[in-house]
Amino acid sequence: MNKLISEETLFNGPRFNLKRRIYENVEGKEYIRDYVDTQSASIIIALTSDKKVVFIRQQREISGLEDLELPAGVIDEGEDAITAARRELQEETGYYANNIEYMGDYFASCGYSNEKLYFYLATDLEMRETHYDSDEVITGIQEIPIEECYEMVRNNQFPYANINLGILLYQLKYEK
Amino acid sequence: MNKLISEETLFNGPRFNLKRRIYENVEGKEYIRDYVDTQSASIIIALTSDKKVVFIRQQREISGLEDLELPAGVIDEGEDAITAARRELQEETGYYANNIEYMGDYFASCGYSNEKLYFYLATDLEMRETHYDSDEVITGIQEIPIEECYEMVRNNQFPYANINLGILLYQLKYEK
Repeated sequence: MNKLISEETLFNGPRFNLKRRIYENVEGKEYIRDYVDTQSASIIIALTSDKKVVFIRQQREISGLEDLELPAGVIDEGEDAITAARRELQEETGYYANNIEYMGDYFASCGYSNEKLYFYLATDLEMRETHYDSDEVITGIQEIPIEECYEMVRNNQFPYANINLGILLYQLKYEK
Repeated sequence: MNKLISEETLFNGPRFNLKRRIYENVEGKEYIRDYVDTQSASIIIALTSDKKVVFIRQQREISGLEDLELPAGVIDEGEDAITAARRELQEETGYYANNIEYMGDYFASCGYSNEKLYFYLATDLEMRETHYDSDEVITGIQEIPIEECYEMVRNNQFPYANINLGILLYQLKYEK
């Protein structure tokens, strides 16, 4: 690995920080790597007893979309990814997961962010109540049969990478 | 959608910019959305005639890994995603794709980046020559049978979300 020379913080924001690292390559030449320093997130495939996936509908300012998303959220400081998964699922959908299983964790954007995405499967769901974060705009909940979800992935109907990955991980790991 | 009040650039970097938007919600309360303003990227599943997927091995400073990746790269200003896919594949692996097919495009990180990932399947490959970017550290090329790739996804052996998604998109769209 090339040699890390220095790291400085360029910006501290409410949701993420920006850092700059200087590296030296094998020829002794220095170069810059800026990156987003951010908390990681848990993403949940919540499957009802009749094999429907629970989605939320949320406004996203940056994509400009109000579309279906998997329940997901930032892992708080000192919190386990699995605890965050259970908490976010209930906050956003009202469902408490009596059973929750790890499916995998991956870097979201290998070039410029240290964010990891932790995927969980939640089953044996029990309806309790929702607690939205004050700055989230969740405008609905929708349950879609898993077979229909596969068709929606095939037809590129989900705009966010993590939805497609979550559904296909479930298919690979639990339906084959 | 909540109302956009203003946008300013907080930082201009060599690889991405940082922007701040102020929105007003339905109660008239203002809130901040910082985001990474960056070019989108093309990602290629390059499949040889004997059904092996072409990987590169690359040093990534931010993840701290030197691991397998799919050939991928930024779409240049004014360039089509498909042209970038073909160019990056050849630059990084030496393979020219006589056939290239769109598989889907998705937002990489829906909360804080405008980056989209364009996935392509490249087949009918012809070995020409590589042209690495000066600041990339590609340390090898490896071809892995597609069936083995599925097992590697199942066992969480690929650390980056986009590899797993690319392989599973191929499986869903071409092998079922």
